[in-house]
Amino acid sequence: MKVSPLAPKSYPKLQPIAGVRLATASCNVRYANRTDLLVAELAEGTKVAGVLTRSLTASASVLACIDALKKGKARGLVVNSGNSNAFTGKAGTASVGRIREAAGKLFGCGIESIFTSSTGVIGEKLPDEKITAVLPGLKFSESAWDEAARAIMTTDTYPKLATGTATIDGVKVTINGIAKGSGMIAPDMATMLAYVFTDADVPSVILQKMLSESNESTFNSITVDGDTSTSDTLLVFATGKAGNKTGEGTDYSDFKKALHAVLYDLSQQVVRDGEGAEKLVTITVSGAESKKAAKNIGMSIANSPLVKTAIAASDANWGRVVAAVGKAGERADRDRLSIAIGGVSVAKNGEADPSYNESQITAHMNGREITIDVNVGVGSESATVYTCDLTHAYIDINGSYRS
Amino acid sequence: MKVSPLAPKSYPKLQPIAGVRLATASCNVRYANRTDLLVAELAEGTKVAGVLTRSLTASASVLACIDALKKGKARGLVVNSGNSNAFTGKAGTASVGRIREAAGKLFGCGIESIFTSSTGVIGEKLPDEKITAVLPGLKFSESAWDEAARAIMTTDTYPKLATGTATIDGVKVTINGIAKGSGMIAPDMATMLAYVFTDADVPSVILQKMLSESNESTFNSITVDGDTSTSDTLLVFATGKAGNKTGEGTDYSDFKKALHAVLYDLSQQVVRDGEGAEKLVTITVSGAESKKAAKNIGMSIANSPLVKTAIAASDANWGRVVAAVGKAGERADRDRLSIAIGGVSVAKNGEADPSYNESQITAHMNGREITIDVNVGVGSESATVYTCDLTHAYIDINGSYRS
Repeated sequence: MKVSPLAPKSYPKLQPIAGVRLATASCNVRYANRTDLLVAELAEGTKVAGVLTRSLTASASVLACIDALKKGKARGLVVNSGNSNAFTGKAGTASVGRIREAAGKLFGCGIESIFTSSTGVIGEKLPDEKITAVLPGLKFSESAWDEAARAIMTTDTYPKLATGTATIDGVKVTINGIAKGSGMIAPDMATMLAYVFTDADVPSVILQKMLSESNESTFNSITVDGDTSTSDTLLVFATGKAGNKTGEGTDYSDFKKALHAVLYDLSQQVVRDGEGAEKLVTITVSGAESKKAAKNIGMSIANSPLVKTAIAASDANWGRVVAAVGKAGERADRDRLSIAIGGVSVAKNGEADPSYNESQITAHMNGREITIDVNVGVGSESATVYTCDLTHAYIDINGSYRS
Repeated sequence: MKVSPLAPKSYPKLQPIAGVRLATASCNVRYANRTDLLVAELAEGTKVAGVLTRSLTASASVLACIDALKKGKARGLVVNSGNSNAFTGKAGTASVGRIREAAGKLFGCGIESIFTSSTGVIGEKLPDEKITAVLPGLKFSESAWDEAARAIMTTDTYPKLATGTATIDGVKVTINGIAKGSGMIAPDMATMLAYVFTDADVPSVILQKMLSESNESTFNSITVDGDTSTSDTLLVFATGKAGNKTGEGTDYSDFKKALHAVLYDLSQQVVRDGEGAEKLVTITVSGAESKKAAKNIGMSIANSPLVKTAIAASDANWGRVVAAVGKAGERADRDRLSIAIGGVSVAKNGEADPSYNESQITAHMNGREITIDVNVGVGSESATVYTCDLTHAYIDINGSYRS
């Protein structure tokens, strides 16, 4: 599989996070000759926040995570690729139970502190015995971030990593994150799989609030194909080992900014690895009556196969953008609608901009990064969403994924 | 352009409808060497009903039709292909006005009895002078149904025609219909373009009610790509020349059935000509809490690019159907969900059917017509929707449409 042309030019080198140790293994759940298991050991006292898919057919792991988040404590994370353990009924729930028990035994904690995820084919029973069998023999390390990101890949063409630092009341804290995701990307409150680790000490309630807010403009603002996964999971683990203060009046604003930057970076890496992606498309909708309306219109454009195929062909077919605005079901003033592509006005006041000449944006359309700005002329709210083009490779990948 | 493999084996021979005369012409609006204009002359007293797109960026013609429908009388229909006259601002409205005036002059009626449609590229000014120039010289005929269907084609690979007969209180009436549409098909209250003509005499209010009802389970139940058009228009013209009675107690049930059959037939022809289509997919969702919920779930499956690419590859990847049910946002009981493909149970009670063996449906998946039946286990309502697979040809067609 060739690496996405939109892949980052270089990957950050992630530093250890006190309280986090990582291990990977080859369990042969589905893939041969590669790692397909990630296990993270988390220090006692680690707090956790998370957002998970709203899919009504969520996987057994997702349901267990939602349950565990209520307790807010984490000691271990177990993630496998190759099989999503979704739509596997009672057998799937039992698999998750066995994995959590085995991991709890390994880390000396109760199953309520073990978080699990599975990603891959839907509807096939997870051979959990292959996973539990390797747990006791795992070698943990503080530095295996790249290996961790690689172990959770499915149709991804590159591992996804991001890092940042912040200070909380003068104490330096570090935030590391990894993610996977390439197809079935239209997160509904979370993304495919993303894990963020920090040595900061942040109360769970505050951590959850920061996460939910940032998630809305990062992972929840990307789409590859409009298909929401059954496994979307975004978890943040805070080991508290940095030793920052946490009492009343603690200023978390720098941490919040750094956390947002890591989430944004990871979400961009996910959409840049959209199945078959050749171009990254950034769509900003302004002039909407609410942020939600702006985002819905943005997503209507981002998920339009006609818009996405036009972009794949470097065709500035903005009429399809108009149609996508029209079908979004949100308020828009057709006669005040304006559209710019690559910063050049192509339409305004409900018709083609008379000064627009297609040659002005030829170079932009032939590039890797396309911007579309739409003002719908009814209010002052805006939102930005991110997607990729729809190419022949998407069809190839998804016509052969199971084989 | 090769004809869709799902095209009907033969086309019906449409008989004349008393009160309807047709003409076509080559105006060179966009296409060279083919007809691109259809004009229908309708006898005085013709009643009309219609449903049009709910798109908020509807074309100038659509808005004029909505206005004209309030009067309920029709004397003429003018349709061009190659340019949709959508998002063309005041210039677009003026174009429609000039076409209606020229047609009104031709038929000796006011502009309020002239219906127009335009289909093709969005956002380019319609050269209406090319259309009005040919109107006076048109040769009308009672039998040019096939020519009429061809003149309104865009990326269609075959013309779409249907016919039926019914009796109203012992009097035989005939219903003829034509349609076009191939991409940007996800009708929201109507379809791309469809016109039905009958010599029956049916009061406008009753005609409109029949049309709206039938539309919901025919044109509004098909999708090619989830992209709702700015031009969707479905009009029914009833000349009344058959001479049936219309007073109180008239039994229109046979006519209603025949009208529904014509609409169903045309809508099937549209989806069978979906851009790049190789397979017709019929999706029935049952066990839903309302008809609307059943249809939303069906459309979520029908518009899933992952489902559509799997079907293109003859892959019975029903896990993607589960994911599409989950993202639909309608109530479904994951643990009572069941799925059958080609009549074979593949999943039940929220997991793979233990008796299912993939080889049972290999022949079905390799065929031209795929059926997917989903029971979501929460109620007793159902709905059926129709779509096609997503193939490389869709990308080819839509990456080069404007050139």
